Amino acid sequence: MGKKQDVTELFGEPVAGNGLLHRRFFLQSSAALAGAAASPALAESIGAGSPPTMLKPGAQFNAYGMPSHWRDNIKRILATNVPPAREVTGSIRTPLQYLEGTITPAGLHYVRNHNGTPDIDPSKHELLIHGMVRQPSIFTVDSLMRYPMRTEIHFMECAGNSGGIAGAAMPQQATAGDLHGLLSGSEWTGVKLSTLLDEVGVDPRAAWMLAEGADAAGMSRSVPVWKAMDDAMIALYQNGEPIRPEQGFPMRLLLPGFEGNTNVKWLRRLKLMDGPMYTKDETSRYTELQPDGKAREFMLQMEPKSVILKPSFSVDMQGPGYYEISGVAWSGLGRVRKVDISADGGKTWAEAALTNPVLPKALTRFRLPWMWNGGPAVLMSRTTDEKGRVQPTHAEWLAQYAPRQNFHFNAIQSWAIGANGKVSNVYV
Amino acid sequence: MGKKQDVTELFGEPVAGNGLLHRRFFLQSSAALAGAAASPALAESIGAGSPPTMLKPGAQFNAYGMPSHWRDNIKRILATNVPPAREVTGSIRTPLQYLEGTITPAGLHYVRNHNGTPDIDPSKHELLIHGMVRQPSIFTVDSLMRYPMRTEIHFMECAGNSGGIAGAAMPQQATAGDLHGLLSGSEWTGVKLSTLLDEVGVDPRAAWMLAEGADAAGMSRSVPVWKAMDDAMIALYQNGEPIRPEQGFPMRLLLPGFEGNTNVKWLRRLKLMDGPMYTKDETSRYTELQPDGKAREFMLQMEPKSVILKPSFSVDMQGPGYYEISGVAWSGLGRVRKVDISADGGKTWAEAALTNPVLPKALTRFRLPWMWNGGPAVLMSRTTDEKGRVQPTHAEWLAQYAPRQNFHFNAIQSWAIGANGKVSNVYV
Repeated sequence: MGKKQDVTELFGEPVAGNGLLHRRFFLQSSAALAGAAASPALAESIGAGSPPTMLKPGAQFNAYGMPSHWRDNIKRILATNVPPAREVTGSIRTPLQYLEGTITPAGLHYVRNHNGTPDIDPSKHELLIHGMVRQPSIFTVDSLMRYPMRTEIHFMECAGNSGGIAGAAMPQQATAGDLHGLLSGSEWTGVKLSTLLDEVGVDPRAAWMLAEGADAAGMSRSVPVWKAMDDAMIALYQNGEPIRPEQGFPMRLLLPGFEGNTNVKWLRRLKLMDGPMYTKDETSRYTELQPDGKAREFMLQMEPKSVILKPSFSVDMQGPGYYEISGVAWSGLGRVRKVDISADGGKTWAEAALTNPVLPKALTRFRLPWMWNGGPAVLMSRTTDEKGRVQPTHAEWLAQYAPRQNFHFNAIQSWAIGANGKVSNVYV
Repeated sequence: MGKKQDVTELFGEPVAGNGLLHRRFFLQSSAALAGAAASPALAESIGAGSPPTMLKPGAQFNAYGMPSHWRDNIKRILATNVPPAREVTGSIRTPLQYLEGTITPAGLHYVRNHNGTPDIDPSKHELLIHGMVRQPSIFTVDSLMRYPMRTEIHFMECAGNSGGIAGAAMPQQATAGDLHGLLSGSEWTGVKLSTLLDEVGVDPRAAWMLAEGADAAGMSRSVPVWKAMDDAMIALYQNGEPIRPEQGFPMRLLLPGFEGNTNVKWLRRLKLMDGPMYTKDETSRYTELQPDGKAREFMLQMEPKSVILKPSFSVDMQGPGYYEISGVAWSGLGRVRKVDISADGGKTWAEAALTNPVLPKALTRFRLPWMWNGGPAVLMSRTTDEKGRVQPTHAEWLAQYAPRQNFHFNAIQSWAIGANGKVSNVYV
């Protein structure tokens, strides 16, 4: 704050410890921010001359636009432990801490590849549906374009997202994107899978479905038929344009809220079966070892989760005063019901405002005003979804699994603010 | 339809002339599409060999992804009458007929520039708010980042969109993007303008606000203060990432539902005034000449409108049978309440299904199932918004204005289907 003011008079009483304000504060018409950020204009600066961009014509049109070169630091994050020769297997992450809202630009959508991005000629691509069906059928891209479509906004999250935190004894000092960036949100358009399954006629005894990709990994997962008949989609478009190669061009299986790898990209085959296939991709990984030594299999739904992005590691504080805490929350089970924020390491909590519309299985932006007094603070966010499921603490999450199990990590993320304003990753 | 079937048995009675089906048809579980598009798989094709993409590793990761080269025909449309030397003044359009859903990828967002896209160093950019205010103030990008933000999905439409249809005696044979592509939809995030105006303290006598851009056109418009205090935003992000140069990096004025040019890009100045400024950009253009010779000024809100994209010119029919009619509808006055579709040139109408959520002043995707019998048909779409305003017919629209007035064209678009399945633009 530029001026010394009576904080309570301007903002009302804090609603939780360490300066958290009521979520409706910023919906009021108010002069409360006066001096927080604006500079009174010097009279001389008014009309003191035009900026250089007004003195010569700007750039010409182009067929497909790109972000500003002034923001070329905003790029996907290649996992640092991948040797160059293996750049087809691994992942690149969404730089969450630089982004806002709920839609991830397709160019910054995270990618998890098991053997590179194939270059598929869409005129030659075929989707085969076979197995326990009345009429095995092949669908081309052109034929799918004739079907009724639907448009829905959903998040996508890798089952291994945030796994580095699960496995590490000491909290890694890294950005929100480094830690949690196997997460993105998109508007998807495509054909409801149940329409196609109705058409081929699924045997009532079929309980599972194999989904196989046309990549060099032959990425394959078993999916329960209830999900295929519920809200599964053959996605053909992402954020309005044809789905991109890294996301499965010309088509991917979309299973809203299920772990990312089951949303099989470059989808070429669905086989209806009476049990799961136990492919290499669901036995060698994507199972969760429990404390008793047994592995949990087919834990497909992503649990409620959230992460504060402003502030977060590298997005530091700039002096005491007013801030908006902002981040994203999501749940694979449905809508986010609420996000609670703590500034005192979990002792007290305040409910954040959610950006409307709050959609099922979609990234939900939350915001909460905060008057930071300049002292140490520990920020936490905790999602409760519409099924009543709540993000666990770090210790609660670890207790569910055997050591080094690192899938489905959804514990509360804690960011410590030092007196110097630096933000660090801490376990609470 | 590959098989001869009793259409009524499968789809129910048509709800309007020329084969329009009820909008809820495709929400039913049904085998009605059987044979419409799928090919029964030959037994030999199952396991007959892997596609080439499965036999060698795919492409490596990259920092910022791009669309498939197989879809490089999907690019923005440069107005054909612009000589190369003037490629900084004019517009490039969104190829609507290739897109789906409601979000336009930023790279395909339409651009209307009056003197090119400036290259602005965000660390040097300043937004000045002055005039009839208590405390003239300068806001930098960094200072705005401290303010409370909001995220909203809205359309943007140029006041001159579709103007070619208004002016032409004969209907131009061109794609939906050529005709109506000065239209896009985005998720915008930024600071509510009323927050900043409250802070600088607007004189109660101020009724208008000049908004000026930092481009070489000095693009300037007068905006009523009621709009500035209502839902105006200083937009800093578009579709999750920092707003792109062509859309105003580092910031633009966002006036949801107002004509595109008032959403001043590269915003550098807002001046509060007691009347409009009558800038060159609101006197030399963006006024509407009426039949009595007087010009209508400050007609700022975009009226309800819609366009069918599938089918549309160049998106032709492929033989009789089942189709989904699909397009976008919008209104600058609020939510789309309903979209009616006619297949018989306006004699009978059927209500389309709207994709949820239906948001105010946002692109709304509509869909309706159609059984095309292969005969001539004229498709029309007509939006009614939540204020009860309805798209006029072509003749009704023309009667409002003097000849050759071509702003705010929102008449019903008619597409004629020939017996050969070719789609053409017609006036009805």
